[in-house]
Amino acid sequence: MTLSETEILSRNNLPPTDKIVQTDIAEYVKQIFAPTHGKYLENQLDEIVDDLSADFLMSEDANTNAEIDWIISKFGNSQIPLEPTDFDSYFQSLNENVVAHSIHTSAPQFIGHMTSALPSFVRPLAKLMTAMNQNAVKIETAKALSFCEREALAMMHHQIYHLSDNFYSQHIQNNQSTLGILVSGGTTANITALWCARNKSLGATHDFLGIEKEGLTAALNYYVYEGAVVIGSELMHFSFDKAADLMGISTKNLIRVPVDANNRVNISALRQTVAECRAKNLHIIAIVGIAGTTDSGSVDSLTEIAEIAQENHVHFHVDAAWGGPVIFSRKYQHKLAGIEQADSVTIDGHKQLYLPMGIGMVFFRDPYLASAIEKQASYTMRKGSFDLGKRALEGSRPGMALFLHAGLQLIGLNGYEFLIDEGIRKTQYMAARIEELPEFELLAQPDTNLLIYRYIPEQFRDVVSNKKITESDNQIINDFNERLQKKQRQIGRTFISRTTKTTISLDKEIPVIAMRAVIANPLTTEGDIDAVLLDQIQIAATMPLTY
Amino acid sequence: MTLSETEILSRNNLPPTDKIVQTDIAEYVKQIFAPTHGKYLENQLDEIVDDLSADFLMSEDANTNAEIDWIISKFGNSQIPLEPTDFDSYFQSLNENVVAHSIHTSAPQFIGHMTSALPSFVRPLAKLMTAMNQNAVKIETAKALSFCEREALAMMHHQIYHLSDNFYSQHIQNNQSTLGILVSGGTTANITALWCARNKSLGATHDFLGIEKEGLTAALNYYVYEGAVVIGSELMHFSFDKAADLMGISTKNLIRVPVDANNRVNISALRQTVAECRAKNLHIIAIVGIAGTTDSGSVDSLTEIAEIAQENHVHFHVDAAWGGPVIFSRKYQHKLAGIEQADSVTIDGHKQLYLPMGIGMVFFRDPYLASAIEKQASYTMRKGSFDLGKRALEGSRPGMALFLHAGLQLIGLNGYEFLIDEGIRKTQYMAARIEELPEFELLAQPDTNLLIYRYIPEQFRDVVSNKKITESDNQIINDFNERLQKKQRQIGRTFISRTTKTTISLDKEIPVIAMRAVIANPLTTEGDIDAVLLDQIQIAATMPLTY
Repeated sequence: MTLSETEILSRNNLPPTDKIVQTDIAEYVKQIFAPTHGKYLENQLDEIVDDLSADFLMSEDANTNAEIDWIISKFGNSQIPLEPTDFDSYFQSLNENVVAHSIHTSAPQFIGHMTSALPSFVRPLAKLMTAMNQNAVKIETAKALSFCEREALAMMHHQIYHLSDNFYSQHIQNNQSTLGILVSGGTTANITALWCARNKSLGATHDFLGIEKEGLTAALNYYVYEGAVVIGSELMHFSFDKAADLMGISTKNLIRVPVDANNRVNISALRQTVAECRAKNLHIIAIVGIAGTTDSGSVDSLTEIAEIAQENHVHFHVDAAWGGPVIFSRKYQHKLAGIEQADSVTIDGHKQLYLPMGIGMVFFRDPYLASAIEKQASYTMRKGSFDLGKRALEGSRPGMALFLHAGLQLIGLNGYEFLIDEGIRKTQYMAARIEELPEFELLAQPDTNLLIYRYIPEQFRDVVSNKKITESDNQIINDFNERLQKKQRQIGRTFISRTTKTTISLDKEIPVIAMRAVIANPLTTEGDIDAVLLDQIQIAATMPLTY
Repeated sequence: MTLSETEILSRNNLPPTDKIVQTDIAEYVKQIFAPTHGKYLENQLDEIVDDLSADFLMSEDANTNAEIDWIISKFGNSQIPLEPTDFDSYFQSLNENVVAHSIHTSAPQFIGHMTSALPSFVRPLAKLMTAMNQNAVKIETAKALSFCEREALAMMHHQIYHLSDNFYSQHIQNNQSTLGILVSGGTTANITALWCARNKSLGATHDFLGIEKEGLTAALNYYVYEGAVVIGSELMHFSFDKAADLMGISTKNLIRVPVDANNRVNISALRQTVAECRAKNLHIIAIVGIAGTTDSGSVDSLTEIAEIAQENHVHFHVDAAWGGPVIFSRKYQHKLAGIEQADSVTIDGHKQLYLPMGIGMVFFRDPYLASAIEKQASYTMRKGSFDLGKRALEGSRPGMALFLHAGLQLIGLNGYEFLIDEGIRKTQYMAARIEELPEFELLAQPDTNLLIYRYIPEQFRDVVSNKKITESDNQIINDFNERLQKKQRQIGRTFISRTTKTTISLDKEIPVIAMRAVIANPLTTEGDIDAVLLDQIQIAATMPLTY
């Protein structure tokens, strides 16, 4: 859709925009910032944006088939304009160059990433949040919101830990307690959890000021360790690499334990790794359990990991960025059994809480753990205050708590349960379809609502089903799947992502390029799933076996 | 404002909401996620939110005088409701409990923090961003947006560094180059800059894999350093404490150099500190210059710091989170001279670019520096791709670039210049008023648009003007100012923040509690500034000298 100036004006019954965009910059700035004049302009923009949004949300395709190079050609200007661009020409180019070629993350046949349609209430709320523009870092810029955020986080904490009413009434609005921290995303949540675990376990004593004030090297010396490690499965999210690098313990000391055929950490290997680290006198900052791997949605056996962590007095962190909300499902919450024993838990609001991008959370069983990272500043963040920024990686941050609070109330436990159950049900449908169709090979039984599979070109279907595939066959199939995924993405009707799995075959580690489906969008029907698979079959039919 | 159900319905000509909130959860979820049914519901919410927003934005007071304990009493529920809450009762309680008692960060007489009225176009844009819900971490979930973000960052880079057209055409859309990273805020920007500096300076060689893979202790051993430090003025933002802690170098090794009377780092002390660190064989990760201290808005002499950094071959980082946009002012950009020599620069979009909360940026002179923190993952973030998440602290993140891109175009250089010039002009007005009024003492001449001063109770005006103030006098004045600031905040008509300055007097370090004004809101007039000062005078008149 492109909007001409005339269309915009006639729709809004407004004078030409050159009447709004003044050449007098003082007058112009006054207009765009004034709540009254602003409202006049804002109504005009509201209409434009509502039309753009509606068109965008109604789109069936995953995205346009515009080539990257063509898009790049639209964004080659490094010079900020001297004069303000007039609103309608800017919004027209925004529409033509950005909105038109953005990904329809809510499209029912875009089932390749952890995005979904969102409930409609988040869009008006986004406007309200921006109008209020609270800064959640401190009470002086976020008065009621600070308490609203604490309440929403306590509600999530309750779902994870199910502690007593007394516990919650004691901690929910106590400025010494931190039940959870709202952050920009799962990466920051994971880093924050490990940071707390590190600082607590290498903390101050009667003759040592703690790692915060003395540093990593001094802490390892003081506690007589050879190094510090974090241990989890080989499928740990790459945010743990960032954390290990950033914290100075090295990515080498992020120890990745092999997984079993179901992509869950091998418990005996984990137990052995922990023992080896202790034998080598390495300090284990945390053991990580994954509730919903990014790759395949599998959930580690959290109860068994909790047991190992407790036996070894080690911090147990659960990365439930994706899978956390499975706790809302009475049918499937057993998969996450043991999460209530975690010392810290990461959950993303922008994944399976169906909230907009930019909402990560980390929760703590011990409400005082986050004191290990507390900082103060004289102009704000005072001791004893309710300033949320004193125990956080981030400083100034938006009032995203509005979305979380609203989501929990307006969707409710029953709504979230339905969303989780439906995602898993449809994933099982897709797995069954893949097993029925000769064109595909299911690469693992789905644990939750992620699914990995691949296309098998006709020539290889027999050897695959007889498990007589050679390494060079596999290479051809890999190349074919990579090209197929890229071509499907480029055409833009439907979308599946891809990943690389390492499987042991013929006594060798063989990389397998896999198609990866994520079924979380409530708008996705069985018919959409069939359509995505059919699209792949049809595209594959047009492709040569090798390139 | 409170909205009754009847008001909402009559305004929208809609059936009672129990017709919308179905008891059948499947049907309910379908309705709230569907773009068509959603639109029906959304229009209803839009009207409510537009009214709430308009009322909020038109508010004259800084905030309501609601007591914290009363607000807390509204947020004591730790149980997510089983059934979805109906929309109008939720929005009514949201209004009564959150919106009503939020801080009017855009009010003309709220001049105590780095918040302001925002241009009206950001509110419709917030809705569009949420409707599009791109995930900027990778091209597969942010196709055109990735390039739009790169363009906006290049525009800012250009303003800072003024490199050649050839440089920009080579790097603006080159996936090997990183001119800047969009992050959630200044803290993450500062951490990212130091992380890059650390990894680059302790990087891989022919026989060492680098700090990322080997860790901090091994890197210090390999390079034969006794420790690693970051050096800057004592007024460095507390995000540097977070960075020093997180990176494992210790907050003790965040070396804070004294400032001069104008709150600028003492250059000879800095030079001496650098020399001392080198003599002690400490690795200097970075020297930090501040362009707009959080406390008082002062700008370090960046040219001189750049010289020291260059002489010592040390990374030069400029924290221009607040003051960066002063580069838009032809009249005042000389204050930031030397910023173009910085290896990295932090600027916040949600401060003086007048964009919503959640927009931080870090820029690099060397487009390849950010490779020092590059990470990959098989399901995404592939080498050679345009995935923005591969060189970033954060992973999934929202399309905040839309605001930055729009702000630069719709406000333009001239608009930003006007905003900066006006802020400084009005701050000078306020400083002059404070000097005229016997009730106040100006604590430092403002460098940009932050101002620190204090109220002097009548009994002390003579000793203050004669500079015969004793330590106990100062203590009484401090207590008075703290109570005055709190009382003013509680009453809620106007707002000034407070900080603590350490001044040398009587050969001792004396803490001085200061009022802190931030003049950035274009809606704030000279009349508003007078009103804030008058409010303080009137409140002070009602207060006993000691408590």
